[in-house]
Amino acid sequence: MELPESLTNSIEQLKRLPGVGEKSAIRYALDILRWQTGDVEQFAESIAQLSQIKKCQRCNMYSDEEICSICSNVKRKEAKILCVVETISDLIAIEKSNNFFGSYFVLNGVLNPLMGVGPEELKLDKLVSIIKLENIDNVILAINPSVEGDATCSYLNSLLPSVTNVERIGFGIPMGGSLEYLDSLTIKKALENRRKF
Amino acid sequence: MELPESLTNSIEQLKRLPGVGEKSAIRYALDILRWQTGDVEQFAESIAQLSQIKKCQRCNMYSDEEICSICSNVKRKEAKILCVVETISDLIAIEKSNNFFGSYFVLNGVLNPLMGVGPEELKLDKLVSIIKLENIDNVILAINPSVEGDATCSYLNSLLPSVTNVERIGFGIPMGGSLEYLDSLTIKKALENRRKF
Repeated sequence: MELPESLTNSIEQLKRLPGVGEKSAIRYALDILRWQTGDVEQFAESIAQLSQIKKCQRCNMYSDEEICSICSNVKRKEAKILCVVETISDLIAIEKSNNFFGSYFVLNGVLNPLMGVGPEELKLDKLVSIIKLENIDNVILAINPSVEGDATCSYLNSLLPSVTNVERIGFGIPMGGSLEYLDSLTIKKALENRRKF
Repeated sequence: MELPESLTNSIEQLKRLPGVGEKSAIRYALDILRWQTGDVEQFAESIAQLSQIKKCQRCNMYSDEEICSICSNVKRKEAKILCVVETISDLIAIEKSNNFFGSYFVLNGVLNPLMGVGPEELKLDKLVSIIKLENIDNVILAINPSVEGDATCSYLNSLLPSVTNVERIGFGIPMGGSLEYLDSLTIKKALENRRKF
């Protein structure tokens, strides 16, 4: 295949994106070639800027500053409610739902001794000191249900001061879900988590 | 949603790619954030270079130089066989198949009087003069089957010197296809285009 070098290069680079194969990469490259010069440069510039991004010193989320916009938001700080998530993607999913107005802490994983992930790797001591220093009243453990996730929640609960109200997000039937197609474990959890109507 | 500006920017930009929505854009951006700085810059640089790409003066394909690498390839020129395609994507598809070793001409469309696409828009005079000047012996019309495509082929055939051998690519059952699931028109074409076994 003889194509212009710049086109071949960009196709090779676009193939590095997750789930993007040769066909999609060609489609993206040909689409970009139809954009105006300014738009292409703006696109490339916005990607290049991602290499400059930092991690927030408080919550471990990506941030343009030392402290991210969520952690430096006074209203969110004053809410004294902290949501603990496994990954940055989980944080973004909660932010997108527009239903949480406190601050976050990203663990970047869950306890997994077999894989060498202990409390130090998750910076649990930093999390505990933030909760104590900022007098956080409520901690929401938005950690996905799994053996490691459950263990992480139990361990975290044992570390936190007894005055802190620690809660885990609800498990049950997702919106739009149908009992018919759900697995037994989800149905078991949904039955356990029933609430007065 | 409160995210770092650079992340929001790059998500917005990634959403401009064809078929990429919010979820895929976030997935791409978070993946890029995990790359090494050098890799991110290389990626952005390769995209930015696309804005510098030219069009080949001979065949209308994208090119880094005035004449693309295919047109300036002596072996391909000496084959004296020219493949006429509708779009650059079609050219890339043929190049990827590694089955054609002549040169190309990209029409960038087909005749469509209702949409204001006439012989001038497709630069058919340029195509005819290339065929005459370079003494092309064989012209392959790799134009997709459609009313406009058929009309374009007929018109082109009438323009070309009678000494030139003009052929259209074969129509029939695609490899891996099954008669059971093919449309009547394809089956009709496949029956018409039968060859001695």
